[in-house]
Parts: sequence; C-alpha cells; structure tokens
Amino acid sequence: MTQTAPARHDVCAVGNAIVDVLAPCDEAFLAREGLPKGSMQLIDEARSAALYDAMAPGVEASGGSAGNTVAGVGSFGGQAAYIGKVAEDQLGEVFSHDIRAAGVVFTTPYLSDGPGTGRCLINVTEDGQRTMATYLGAANQLSAADIDEALIADSAIVYLEGYLFDPAPAREAFARAAEAAHRAGRRVAITLSDTFVVDRWRPELLAFIEASADIVLANRAELLALFQTEEFDAACDALAERTEVSAVTCSEDGSVLLRGDERVRIPAFPVGRVIDTTGAGDQYAAGFLLGLARGLELPDAGALGALAAAEVISHWGPRPLVSLEALARDRGLPL
Amino acid sequence: MTQTAPARHDVCAVGNAIVDVLAPCDEAFLAREGLPKGSMQLIDEARSAALYDAMAPGVEASGGSAGNTVAGVGSFGGQAAYIGKVAEDQLGEVFSHDIRAAGVVFTTPYLSDGPGTGRCLINVTEDGQRTMATYLGAANQLSAADIDEALIADSAIVYLEGYLFDPAPAREAFARAAEAAHRAGRRVAITLSDTFVVDRWRPELLAFIEASADIVLANRAELLALFQTEEFDAACDALAERTEVSAVTCSEDGSVLLRGDERVRIPAFPVGRVIDTTGAGDQYAAGFLLGLARGLELPDAGALGALAAAEVISHWGPRPLVSLEALARDRGLPL
Repeated sequence: MTQTAPARHDVCAVGNAIVDVLAPCDEAFLAREGLPKGSMQLIDEARSAALYDAMAPGVEASGGSAGNTVAGVGSFGGQAAYIGKVAEDQLGEVFSHDIRAAGVVFTTPYLSDGPGTGRCLINVTEDGQRTMATYLGAANQLSAADIDEALIADSAIVYLEGYLFDPAPAREAFARAAEAAHRAGRRVAITLSDTFVVDRWRPELLAFIEASADIVLANRAELLALFQTEEFDAACDALAERTEVSAVTCSEDGSVLLRGDERVRIPAFPVGRVIDTTGAGDQYAAGFLLGLARGLELPDAGALGALAAAEVISHWGPRPLVSLEALARDRGLPL
Repeated sequence: MTQTAPARHDVCAVGNAIVDVLAPCDEAFLAREGLPKGSMQLIDEARSAALYDAMAPGVEASGGSAGNTVAGVGSFGGQAAYIGKVAEDQLGEVFSHDIRAAGVVFTTPYLSDGPGTGRCLINVTEDGQRTMATYLGAANQLSAADIDEALIADSAIVYLEGYLFDPAPAREAFARAAEAAHRAGRRVAITLSDTFVVDRWRPELLAFIEASADIVLANRAELLALFQTEEFDAACDALAERTEVSAVTCSEDGSVLLRGDERVRIPAFPVGRVIDTTGAGDQYAAGFLLGLARGLELPDAGALGALAAAEVISHWGPRPLVSLEALARDRGLPL
C-alpha cells in the first residue's frame, strides 16, 4: 500500500439496490411456499408476483444489505456513499430518497430501459426471524461501468455484499471496486451475506478473501459454512489468518471480533421485544465499519455495531428509524 | 326503511385510496415546512415532491382512512369491501395487494390514464403524533360511476370518509353511495376525518348528517369544531340528537359512545410505548363498526375499537400487523 490522503468518506458500499416488502407470516406459510426459514433465495419476476399475492398485508422500506449499512453509517453521522442500480420507477424513487435522506452520496445512474427496481419479499415469523425471497430486477444490471473509482478512492473502506456474487455482471463490478480501493490504499471489506451464497460461491469467496479482503463480516452460520466445519473457534482462527480484522455476529449471544490472535467478545444490547430481525447484520456492519474507519478501539467499534443492531430489530424494517448518532451519544460511545 | 335480507358484508367503505410515506421528524421540521402539528393538508404534486425531498428516510404502507378501517375489519375476521381509486403503478399495486390480503373485496377499476396513485406524506414526531400532507393523485378521480350499488346494498354499513368532501367528483360518489345504502335498508356511517375538513365543509357535513348519517365517528376536536363549541357534553348531545349511534374518541382518555340519552365510556387499552398514532382513529372505527354490524352491545363494540387502536399505535404504519381477531380472542371479547 502507498501512503494515502485522508478519505472524504468513511464507507463506500457496493450492493444490490432493493426495496423490501415486509409482512408477518406463520411457519406453515413458509413450509407451504417452500421457503427455508431465515434464508434468502433469488426468485424471478413471475414467482415474485405469485409470492406477493400470497403474502399478508405489509409495509415497504428501502433495503439491500449494503444499502442498509451505509444508511446506518449516515444515521451515525458518518460520511457514506453507495453504488447500486435501481430503475426509474416509484420504488426506485423511494430507494433513492431514503438513502440520500440518510446523508449518503448516491449517484449511480438509473436503469432507464429494462426491469423495474428490485424487491425483496420478507416474511417475518412471530419470533422476529425474517425469510427473504429476492427478485433482483434492475439491481441485476449493475455492471463494472457503474463503479465510480474516484468515489471509492476517496473512501476509507469499500464494503461489498457477498450477495453480489450472484448476478454475473455485478461480479465484475465487485472486482473493479476492490481493485480501485487497493490502488488508492484503502481497505476492502466484504460480508458473506447468507449461508446459501457461501454454498454457491465458496471457492470464489475464499479466493476473493485471500486476495482482496482486509475485513470480513459474517454471522456464525456463514462462517461455519465458509470453512465447512462445526468448530466455531477453529473457523474464527481460519478467518483471522486471512484478514486484518473481522467480525462474527452470533444473534443474541453478541459478536466476536478477530484481529490476529486477539478475540474481543461484544455483548448484544438488550432489546425490549424483538419485532423484526431484518437488517440486524447490516446495521451491525454500519457501526463496526464506521468504528474501523474512524480508528476506534475494537470494543468501541463492536459496541457501535451492537447498538445499531439493537435499534433495528425493535421495529419493522431494515434501517434505523431514530438517529444512531444520538443513541451513541446517550450511551457515551465514542464516534 | 324496508325489511332487509342479511348482508354479505359487514362494512363497505368509500374513501381516498392512498399510500402512506411515514418518516420521523422533529417539531422544528414541522414549523419550517409550515405543517400544523396533527393536521392533514392537501398538497399538489410539486409540493409533494419537494416535501418528500426534505423528509427523513421512512417506510411506506397502504393507507387512506377508510381503507385502513376496512383492512382492520378484515383483520378482525369481518367481511369488508372497499371502493376507492388507485393508478396502475407500483404504489397502486401495493395498495391493491394490501387491502385484498386483508380479506377485503376491492374491485374499483384502476385509473389507467391520469395522475399516479395518491400518497400521504406523514411526519411523525417523537411523541408519536402524526402530521399529514396528502397528494390525492388518482384518488381524486373517484366518481359516482365507481360506486358499485350492488356491493353497497349487500353491506350492513356503508362507511364514508369526511375527507371525500374535498375532491369534487368524490362528493357525488359519496351521495350516490349513501342513497344506495338507504334504498337497500342499510346504515350509513361517516367519519368527520379532520378539524380542517370540518371547517371547510361544516354546512355540508351538518346537512349530510341530518339527512343521511345513521352513525358518526369523530374525535373530540372534530366534534367541537362541528358544533363550534368548547362544551364537550353539549356537543355530544347535539350529535346524539342527529344520529342513531355515534362514537367520539379522546386519545388516551378513551372514547364515548352516544345513543339517545345513553353515554357509554370506553377506556383506552394500555400501550407500552406509543410509536406512531397514524391510523388510531381508523382502527377504532374498524372495531366499533364491526361490532355494530354484528349487533354487539355498545361496550363490546367500543372495546373492539379501543383494542384495534392500541395495536396500531404500538408500531409504524396505519394498519394492524397482527391478527386483530386473535387479539380479541385473547382478551375474551366477543366478535
């Protein structure tokens, strides 16, 4: 790495730009629709329409994993940018509004000709667990041409969704973003996103992590899937060997941060009642990455992540509905 | 009234079909945007776009006062129908999905040529109070031709929004719906909707109530505005003289039901924390009207209303997110 100038942005994320449709369901509904509880599966437009027909009345909210994360960074008062593809339709307008209203720079051109804005149908069981079925739509059309290399060069961390391994043109965008970041002396972070993504793209993900990722975010199940083991500590060691610093989330058991031989356990923040876990990992990433970008100590970066996750699971929708900056201030956490 | 056959539907509502955009705000934002706290004002498309630009990130949910009410009736397991106008766009699709998914019959033809689906921009302050600015869009195009008289004739109660006094073509639809209901020996209910609506249309509303309304729903402020008095008991008496049965809601002080000289006080259900009061009156109407349609005792009808209102103010959005039927069963309330 060369010596680098201070970055204007803390985090620039590249992701599938998606609007979420969230509705309550019961376990029988998931079984009937063939949806493995807690998973994310890709579906086509026809299946999306049919599944939507079967779903209960719901609410809509801007989503997309990395989009949620930068909206969280913005809510913390951080400087964030986003690269992702929406269509010029009402859902695209909603997505663009929400991410910009969170203070995030978003300048990727609309897709003017092609499928509509992507949507993720999220069925939430009574325990707050979410099960997702995504029609990528316009998000699928993100290509290397959309990667604004100057924006990435001016961001302390570029953050990539593991989900981007699925749409073929996005894989190229993904590679270009990582190269641009490293060329500018910035750090590259990636989230594994989903165990099914890990199963579909294990060799590619491992190769990418070895070659390009400085920071990895994963939940416990994704980490175990990546290294095909049931041994949590061994999997943590394997990940720590390959990265500068990483975070593994374990739901209500909190998270573990990995840096070399160091293991830092971060407790989960208590939550009155878990309503909808959609976005929990994304908001954890927001606090953690902002903390790293700002050079905070690991326990503080982890605590910011835990705080943001606790906010988002206490209501419907994947993004914070109160200022995370104010919450952090109330808790005496550094920013 | 002639002798009538049992009705297939408990409630058929006629209203402005609207999708809500809800976002948190502070009091300074309302002052800056010239929005009187707690009010609803009509805005044009350009103002709607500018206000949306200024709003915080939010969530979207199907709304429209009477639409919320019949969705609540559906959630109670009641039979409901709805007449209102949306465009054939993504927000229109969301509206149609949500109301049908709530078990409500909705067959009004889409507006195929004209403005997009109406939207209500709702800014919610930290105390849970909502302040609304509505661009009616396609809802404004509801006309007498959209009134399905057979549907209304087969509904125990037709329920009309006071908001419908604002768009000119809807006033005609309103009159036709009331006539169709009375011709079939059904009851006509109306909500006053908003103090500003009452101020704009006081003589028309009073004339309509005298001539056509069997049931009136109002909150305390609307009732006082209607009779231009500060004397609550006198206003209740004035309303009771003009209607068969009515309900006046008083926020956390519960509600009062009026029938002749009878006054029934219904306490509010306790709520852990008030998140967003959007839809509170609409859901109260759902329980109350369903109770009347089913011939329940007044205290039971009022309790159903209070229960539905308590559910909806405990989360973001104007419609129930859990089964009101299950809630009522848990509380031992008759349905």
